[in-house]
Amino acid sequence: MDKNPPVYKNGKVSVHPVVRTFMRRCGEIGFISAHFSFEDGGQQLPYSIVAAFNYIFAAANYSLGVYPGLTSGAANLIITSGSPELKKYYIPKMFTGEWQGTMALTEPGAGSSLSDIKTKAIPTGEGFYLIKGQKIFISAGNHDGADNVVNLMLARVEGAPAGVKGISLFVVPELRGDGAGGLVSNDVTCAGIEHKLGYRGSPITQLSMGENDDCRGWIVGEENKGLAYMFQMMNEERINVGIGAAGIASAAYYDSLKYSGERLQGRPLNSKNPADPQCAIINHPDVKRMLLYQKAVSEGSLSLALLLGKYIDLKHVSSDEEIEKIDLLLEFLTPIAKSYPSEKGIHSVSAGLQILGGYGYCEDFNLELFFRDSRIHPIHEGTTGIQGQDLLGRKTAMKSGRAFELFLHEIRKTINEAEKYDELEDYAAKLDQSLSDFEITARHLLNLASKGNIEVFLADATLYLEMAGVLTIAWQWLMQANCAAKQLINCSDEALKKFYLSKIHTMKFFFKYELPAVGTLSDILMDEEILTAGIDEAIFID
Amino acid sequence: MDKNPPVYKNGKVSVHPVVRTFMRRCGEIGFISAHFSFEDGGQQLPYSIVAAFNYIFAAANYSLGVYPGLTSGAANLIITSGSPELKKYYIPKMFTGEWQGTMALTEPGAGSSLSDIKTKAIPTGEGFYLIKGQKIFISAGNHDGADNVVNLMLARVEGAPAGVKGISLFVVPELRGDGAGGLVSNDVTCAGIEHKLGYRGSPITQLSMGENDDCRGWIVGEENKGLAYMFQMMNEERINVGIGAAGIASAAYYDSLKYSGERLQGRPLNSKNPADPQCAIINHPDVKRMLLYQKAVSEGSLSLALLLGKYIDLKHVSSDEEIEKIDLLLEFLTPIAKSYPSEKGIHSVSAGLQILGGYGYCEDFNLELFFRDSRIHPIHEGTTGIQGQDLLGRKTAMKSGRAFELFLHEIRKTINEAEKYDELEDYAAKLDQSLSDFEITARHLLNLASKGNIEVFLADATLYLEMAGVLTIAWQWLMQANCAAKQLINCSDEALKKFYLSKIHTMKFFFKYELPAVGTLSDILMDEEILTAGIDEAIFID
Repeated sequence: MDKNPPVYKNGKVSVHPVVRTFMRRCGEIGFISAHFSFEDGGQQLPYSIVAAFNYIFAAANYSLGVYPGLTSGAANLIITSGSPELKKYYIPKMFTGEWQGTMALTEPGAGSSLSDIKTKAIPTGEGFYLIKGQKIFISAGNHDGADNVVNLMLARVEGAPAGVKGISLFVVPELRGDGAGGLVSNDVTCAGIEHKLGYRGSPITQLSMGENDDCRGWIVGEENKGLAYMFQMMNEERINVGIGAAGIASAAYYDSLKYSGERLQGRPLNSKNPADPQCAIINHPDVKRMLLYQKAVSEGSLSLALLLGKYIDLKHVSSDEEIEKIDLLLEFLTPIAKSYPSEKGIHSVSAGLQILGGYGYCEDFNLELFFRDSRIHPIHEGTTGIQGQDLLGRKTAMKSGRAFELFLHEIRKTINEAEKYDELEDYAAKLDQSLSDFEITARHLLNLASKGNIEVFLADATLYLEMAGVLTIAWQWLMQANCAAKQLINCSDEALKKFYLSKIHTMKFFFKYELPAVGTLSDILMDEEILTAGIDEAIFID
Repeated sequence: MDKNPPVYKNGKVSVHPVVRTFMRRCGEIGFISAHFSFEDGGQQLPYSIVAAFNYIFAAANYSLGVYPGLTSGAANLIITSGSPELKKYYIPKMFTGEWQGTMALTEPGAGSSLSDIKTKAIPTGEGFYLIKGQKIFISAGNHDGADNVVNLMLARVEGAPAGVKGISLFVVPELRGDGAGGLVSNDVTCAGIEHKLGYRGSPITQLSMGENDDCRGWIVGEENKGLAYMFQMMNEERINVGIGAAGIASAAYYDSLKYSGERLQGRPLNSKNPADPQCAIINHPDVKRMLLYQKAVSEGSLSLALLLGKYIDLKHVSSDEEIEKIDLLLEFLTPIAKSYPSEKGIHSVSAGLQILGGYGYCEDFNLELFFRDSRIHPIHEGTTGIQGQDLLGRKTAMKSGRAFELFLHEIRKTINEAEKYDELEDYAAKLDQSLSDFEITARHLLNLASKGNIEVFLADATLYLEMAGVLTIAWQWLMQANCAAKQLINCSDEALKKFYLSKIHTMKFFFKYELPAVGTLSDILMDEEILTAGIDEAIFID
């Protein structure tokens, strides 16, 4: 799919034939509907299981997994917020993989700034709106692997207030029902596709609605509440991006682990006799360091994704009070679960590529593909910068800081648990120190906010997000080490023992090499020298 | 050239037609011979000027600049170590750009471990050797943009000692003189080219010598001293890699700077009224931070490259005692000048890509190309891991630590200078602290080495190199700030004033956001927990 990317011709996009086969197969095995309730036609599988599926799909072929993933997300939005008619008409075909779902937000003038969406929706009084406008960067917005595309699209009803308070959500299909069981054109034109660095198996389309004034959209939920509905799908997609990034990072890890065990080059540094045979490069400490980094990033990210899956599942069996807590934790952790794997996943893949040396740079191996594919993740579904502003500007202070407090509390529970194991005590103390650095830094920043200069407050939100990310993944590793330490007590299976010891070893690696960044980032964030916010552009003169 | 990469067919490589034009033009304007002496047919231009040229070429088109760059490097090797006959025959055609020069080191079983080179050279007693073997990853090893390729090739004379002490250097041309002014095949076959992530304009070839037992090689200098000669070219190429990486990073910086001044998106965080027009994204602090990072990395790297150029130039006018010092500084700084721009250049380009958001991921802009091109630099001419071992394992301890001491001394001079300017005093103190961290860390590591466990000593040499890199670039920035502060005293030109202030501002940025890494890396390097060296592979079991 990377070598045969989508082709645009005369308003239609041809994708690799495997897309159609795969989508139908995902429909048949019930993957697209996996975590939906029985009543809605789903399988009621826990979300953590679905997350694990998505992780495996992403490791195998990120671009391909996006087709059913988006369809599932779009279906969720119709099921949760759409009318019974919309559900009845669209969901069955989406669940079978015959129809593709998308999320259509971005416009040429509205990317990170969604409040500037201009696509118009004109009420007709006939149960639908007339849609007119342009969308860009719409993943799978048109392709011949599906019989129809169901766009979940943000638009502005004529006369609606400016900004985010005037945005509504519509179902805008490529083809609409003709009332007699057939389909007719809905005046949604695909104007082209992007040619991209990676993620090439999935077409990123430009869509033009209403060129012939005949594009119909059906509202989802109430007018002007579209962004709130969309954020339900968006949060799910953000978690999925993190899972996808973890999947690619894992695939890269296993490829470089395999290579490093086979490739002979150099000799152990302690016995460099040129007459000795060369050793496998996995024996070189620098290669081991890179492999452990890859393992730490990918498995740490997966751990976080599965935890979020668990939280989502727990909501089905929890009291209202517990659900409120879980929702707050999900709010706080979503930008982290999206960004940490996205950002560090690239570094992790890059370390894997480096292990292969010149071969890593060539197309004979997949590392260069993973390097290209992984670079999309800090961009789509809200850039890292936007995630940082979300975490610091919204989530940290929300509900009087309750989400933030709950986050600290969860980490403290893991620290307390680790203190019970002699071998983990030192690491518990290290995480405790980092947690304290984080808390102090967050309070310092919130104090800046209270002085009213929001630009200074949020100037380094990206670094705050990075700090929260490293802390969170360290927490995941200590959690895994706790589990391993517990299991090791009575473990007699040698293979299992090695597995648990490898988890503890990787935790130690993360704590030695990665966790110190928390302290450094804290120092930078606490430093009050202002070098970006409000500074004149003249700093770029040369 | 990226879209029309070299094509291999029937043993020949076709490259973009501009290669031939460009090589001849580089010959005509005297670029290939620029820094050679008049006697050798050169222009006697200072090396710092050549470095600036190379920087500009790399920013324009990294792949294209490699053709004359390699030719110049290969010519240098023949001029410095070759016989008068070799000089007379090869140099004129190389200087005109008619013949391509290469460095042919790598073999399938000998990449980072050069001691394992197997290509054989059999003495004939007729003034040449018969060469037999395989080389891979040879840049520009065969192409139709030149009339001949002059490979500077490492091989092992039959019966030579094992390891690096048995390696000799040969001129192994693609076509050899027929004694009557013509050229005949020299039995060097191009067996294929690599398909690469980036750097696509330059063919990376596989060469096979002596398939018909008729490949002749002419020795350069003495037998078994080949690696020492080659390292002269290699050191020059390593500096060039750093310059190339800085060039690509600069090109990316200017592209994202331009975009950020034109792209309207969002509103200032202090006045978010959706009715206001959107602002250019350069006004967002997070974008400014990324731009300043790009500026700090690319201009800091350029500064270091030009300093090395200056050192090389100073050798022409210095006393023997001074030349010895300069050589030691060059030895110490070369791995840093190669690696810092290579590693941080990728991050810097990635930040630039991020500024363009979704557009940065698409081929409409050059950022995705820069991202792919820049990834070669930590790999070729000695990986970052190899540079780290060179800096810590060889350069830091060499001549009883004299190179190391000279390095510290030069930085201290800059600190002392900065202390004279009130505005720079705090930054002088910061660099002084980092310098002290570095010194303590280096001595701690050397102490480990003295205990005999070389594997533990060198385990984190890559981090030591990174630490030295950040320190060195901070030094470059303080040096630039000193110069700016001095010039500002009596500066009445408003544009120049802004330029100098931008330099001081970028120094402050580097000291706030990047320099703290020195302390963090010091802590990691001083930590005695061993998690890689000598640890069993079982840590990777899952």
